[in-house]
Amino acid sequence: MQTIEKLFKSASTSYNKQLPHLKTCRELALVALEKLASDAAYQSYSVHSAHNIATKYAVFTAKGAISRPIAEALFIADTKAFAALDKDVIGDLARRETLSSSEIDAVSSYIYTAIMAFAATYDLWKPGSRKTPGTFFEVFMAALVNLHLPEHELSKHVNLGAMLGEDTRDEEQEAREVTGSEEDEEESSVSTDLVIKSAKSKKWAVVPLKITTRERVVQPFAHQRILESSFPGQFHSFLCCISETQLDKKTESVKQICVPGTIKLFQRFLSPIEGLYYCDIPARYSLPSLTRYVPVKRLGEVFNDLRQLLG
Amino acid sequence: MQTIEKLFKSASTSYNKQLPHLKTCRELALVALEKLASDAAYQSYSVHSAHNIATKYAVFTAKGAISRPIAEALFIADTKAFAALDKDVIGDLARRETLSSSEIDAVSSYIYTAIMAFAATYDLWKPGSRKTPGTFFEVFMAALVNLHLPEHELSKHVNLGAMLGEDTRDEEQEAREVTGSEEDEEESSVSTDLVIKSAKSKKWAVVPLKITTRERVVQPFAHQRILESSFPGQFHSFLCCISETQLDKKTESVKQICVPGTIKLFQRFLSPIEGLYYCDIPARYSLPSLTRYVPVKRLGEVFNDLRQLLG
Repeated sequence: MQTIEKLFKSASTSYNKQLPHLKTCRELALVALEKLASDAAYQSYSVHSAHNIATKYAVFTAKGAISRPIAEALFIADTKAFAALDKDVIGDLARRETLSSSEIDAVSSYIYTAIMAFAATYDLWKPGSRKTPGTFFEVFMAALVNLHLPEHELSKHVNLGAMLGEDTRDEEQEAREVTGSEEDEEESSVSTDLVIKSAKSKKWAVVPLKITTRERVVQPFAHQRILESSFPGQFHSFLCCISETQLDKKTESVKQICVPGTIKLFQRFLSPIEGLYYCDIPARYSLPSLTRYVPVKRLGEVFNDLRQLLG
Repeated sequence: MQTIEKLFKSASTSYNKQLPHLKTCRELALVALEKLASDAAYQSYSVHSAHNIATKYAVFTAKGAISRPIAEALFIADTKAFAALDKDVIGDLARRETLSSSEIDAVSSYIYTAIMAFAATYDLWKPGSRKTPGTFFEVFMAALVNLHLPEHELSKHVNLGAMLGEDTRDEEQEAREVTGSEEDEEESSVSTDLVIKSAKSKKWAVVPLKITTRERVVQPFAHQRILESSFPGQFHSFLCCISETQLDKKTESVKQICVPGTIKLFQRFLSPIEGLYYCDIPARYSLPSLTRYVPVKRLGEVFNDLRQLLG
């Protein structure tokens, strides 16, 4: 676990200093997967069935500890297969202008495996660090977006307050210092995740990154509303997630926590976002009753949609 | 602790069934305070100083466990003094149309003591139940509002989705069942706390209740925005809180987690609320730089302001 923690620290430090960190992230994903292969058992757990969609979930276990549920079809547990996928996906993102549907599947599966492998090692061997997997998702996605769209300027944690003449940077700093990185508090409410500025137009893409949304699903819509009020038509939000699953130990089943009606309300009354992007799309979010109002897509599609917006 | 848990269960069950529960809440507050007086030590912890406002905080301790910080000036630790205050405050709320400034202080101190005594018993002897103190705050405030404004109809958890033809009740139910009452998840994002319907006009008061707001501070503004979009001028939100304190064990100090710039952004770009009501008003929230935009008041003042709105 020490190697994993060290690599994670190195990746996030480089990211914070705006230094290249893709290589460290790729190494970290592989090391996490190798650690799981050698020190944990991987086994089927339960099948989630809803709306004619069945999803098989597995878990990693080690010494009585159990990981979060993992969608078997998306997760590449074999380390050699993952290393090959890594090479392909990185090549595709670096070279292709537009990803094909099969490349999108490969990218989604790649990101899913990297994030879930890392998260599972923390679930099993460092369960107190609840925020760390989410940070890795952000750090890793920033590296991949920068690889695919190197001409556009990428920044992190854009402070809406400062942009609007209401400086809230001290508040964020205070909240971060007090809660600390191991704490259970969420990020400050007016700081976005990734923001990408088009090199060609006055468009900006805002990319909130959340492993699962839960009650925080309101944030991207509230941020989009604030940005749209002040800079009409310039900012566009792409909410990127891994899944909405939760392990229910009592019933030994996997739940998908879905709030389609809530999302429709936010899309209608706060401010519309461009889409919800998931690796493991929740069954209820794939239905026309939601997708008629908000596009719901595979995570890999966000790379095409970002290029479309930014030019 | 069993008596406390039993009384809490009785109060919240009655509340859910819309049966009278004020008496049980009052008994519960007193029993919690007695339990602390007999089984815990109460001692000064640290002084929070900011903007020329110094607030002394104490804590309860028992067998190595430590409670959340308690503002000494507001907390009536003496059980006899609290029993006398209880009688006065309940009498005032039942009889007075408008509370005087000293009655407002008494009401604020009373509610603060009841909620913090209850919360401290959970901090010391049942630390896993993180959501329970917040629920007691809601249950207790509902009883007090109903005592003071019996002619107006009080309801709980108004579902904005259902009101707007977007039924999200199943989602809330699902989220509640899955997360369970002992879990760390927050309430569903489109369900309000107390709602009071005027018997005389088409006005409604929405009263979000949060012991502290943290990253959830966005919710009341988002809800107000959704309501205002659909029912212009009819709904008014009054955000009621206990404090924004956090114990920092490393430095043995008490922090007040404040985000005035964030609140100003939400007030300006989401939808304005009527005010922030606190028992222990954070120092930075008492400054004109915030109160110029959003009224910040003692919690007891909400009773006058609700009557003002509802008529």
